[in-house]
Amino acid sequence: MSEGAESRDSYPHVETLQTRWADNDVYGHVNNVEYYAFFDTVINRWLIREGGLDIHGGEVIGVCAESHCTYTDGFAFPDDIEAGLRVARLGNSSVTYEIGLFAVGAEEPSATGWFVHVFVDAESRRPAAIPPRLRAGLERLQTDAGGAGGAE
Amino acid sequence: MSEGAESRDSYPHVETLQTRWADNDVYGHVNNVEYYAFFDTVINRWLIREGGLDIHGGEVIGVCAESHCTYTDGFAFPDDIEAGLRVARLGNSSVTYEIGLFAVGAEEPSATGWFVHVFVDAESRRPAAIPPRLRAGLERLQTDAGGAGGAE
Amino acid sequence: MSEGAESRDSYPHVETLQTRWADNDVYGHVNNVEYYAFFDTVINRWLIREGGLDIHGGEVIGVCAESHCTYTDGFAFPDDIEAGLRVARLGNSSVTYEIGLFAVGAEEPSATGWFVHVFVDAESRRPAAIPPRLRAGLERLQTDAGGAGGAE
Amino acid sequence: MSEGAESRDSYPHVETLQTRWADNDVYGHVNNVEYYAFFDTVINRWLIREGGLDIHGGEVIGVCAESHCTYTDGFAFPDDIEAGLRVARLGNSSVTYEIGLFAVGAEEPSATGWFVHVFVDAESRRPAAIPPRLRAGLERLQTDAGGAGGAE
Repeated sequence: MSEGAESRDSYPHVETLQTRWADNDVYGHVNNVEYYAFFDTVINRWLIREGGLDIHGGEVIGVCAESHCTYTDGFAFPDDIEAGLRVARLGNSSVTYEIGLFAVGAEEPSATGWFVHVFVDAESRRPAAIPPRLRAGLERLQTDAGGAGGAE
Repeated sequence: MSEGAESRDSYPHVETLQTRWADNDVYGHVNNVEYYAFFDTVINRWLIREGGLDIHGGEVIGVCAESHCTYTDGFAFPDDIEAGLRVARLGNSSVTYEIGLFAVGAEEPSATGWFVHVFVDAESRRPAAIPPRLRAGLERLQTDAGGAGGAE
Repeated sequence: MSEGAESRDSYPHVETLQTRWADNDVYGHVNNVEYYAFFDTVINRWLIREGGLDIHGGEVIGVCAESHCTYTDGFAFPDDIEAGLRVARLGNSSVTYEIGLFAVGAEEPSATGWFVHVFVDAESRRPAAIPPRLRAGLERLQTDAGGAGGAE
Repeated sequence: MSEGAESRDSYPHVETLQTRWADNDVYGHVNNVEYYAFFDTVINRWLIREGGLDIHGGEVIGVCAESHCTYTDGFAFPDDIEAGLRVARLGNSSVTYEIGLFAVGAEEPSATGWFVHVFVDAESRRPAAIPPRLRAGLERLQTDAGGAGGAE
């Protein structure tokens, strides 16, 4: 899959995330696992703050169906990370995000990835239509720069 | 506080826990934070399996009020850890556990700690009496070897 | 990409991994991030125990270049996980692993993924040939059941 | 032990830390384990930025000998946390920090704790005198408001 344009301005939303001491692994860099913690943190911050997602008592919840990361360069605590977020594909009950992780001020990402959320009913855990406010929040992250859509 | 006898046989329950690659920090040993993950893992495995705690829909939940760890020696992935568990004090709605983390086969612990659970109503989050089956499970972990009780 | 056969017996190596209390997220299941901790734990346990990798002072280290996970079903603490591991592609300095995560006794995986390691010189961090003993260990994980190779 | 004054202005250094999605546990709040990740993050950020600690190639490293946390109230993702840091006791090769974790703008902490670092030679892992620049950084965190000294 092509992940499309990767420069910083191809992401409608960018925010700064912190690293933690415990992120560093024995080789002195942020462990590969933690990149996915950055992914779901930038995604869920957006969903809660801009899309009105209620993670404690809402009717729908987002469940991860697929995720992927390509690592180009590393981070190390105490680096900050600038995380770019866009929506590559928006379906009835699912959404594919693309994320770029940048060193502060860098033009090229140190890592890029995608993440697929399927929204499900909080009780039955069956796929559910994305509620209007959440959809409106996600639409603001859509861009022509996106790739073919994340999951091939 | 005296943490009482620390040898392996002073813990009525001992089980083996695994380390993970990501536990290791930049200095090559399991990071101090993860010891508390071992503590609440050995505690909650006991509560679920021996005490009938239902973490998804039960009426009471255990909330951590205080925790402590003294580090004597280190672990490193892929070491296994033998975690000893006992109850030092059992109140109406709270319990103080003492935990010893041992290298496989070692007589002396590499770390010891305590952990205080207050049981609360899952809805109101107010202190609640420990249910009978859970209390029976905790009583099986009581021992004379315990210290003065963990929380001062 | 086809990830090839996914049944348990398509993985030459299977071992049991533990979940931890802290793995569970607010929705009551093991968080998507932790699946990658299972991936790099089963991989590195193999590399250390069967391939002689020395993560503290060895001449080469494995750096993650790409990882991916497809989530079909969930796990929840205190579930154990049976992790299957195989090698889909073995190059001069890189290797693509495929991993299947199974509920205990299940025939179909709850999650499958791949993970690409590039081995680099521990000092220069430039790609290095996989040392003979490590390569021999990886060859024992090769199988005809592998997919097209994980990475693109 | 008395942890001394706990109000925000009793901490010479305060900085904002982020929570992550994965911090939340099944009960909807940041898991007790992660508080220690906040502790060692605020401590090591200070040591690196203000004390010149080189975690990759420095001659001394800080090893955690003891840690403790008292939990009064909870946090939940996506809350930010204001972490206050002070030094309660500064010895030749060891230091006891006290940390307060505050909700944004709160006067009373949601959690307080202490953390003891022993500095050791990076090679021999034997206790080593705290280097002058690091000591100067730590002295700037000393305050009369500290308690009896962390570890009783």
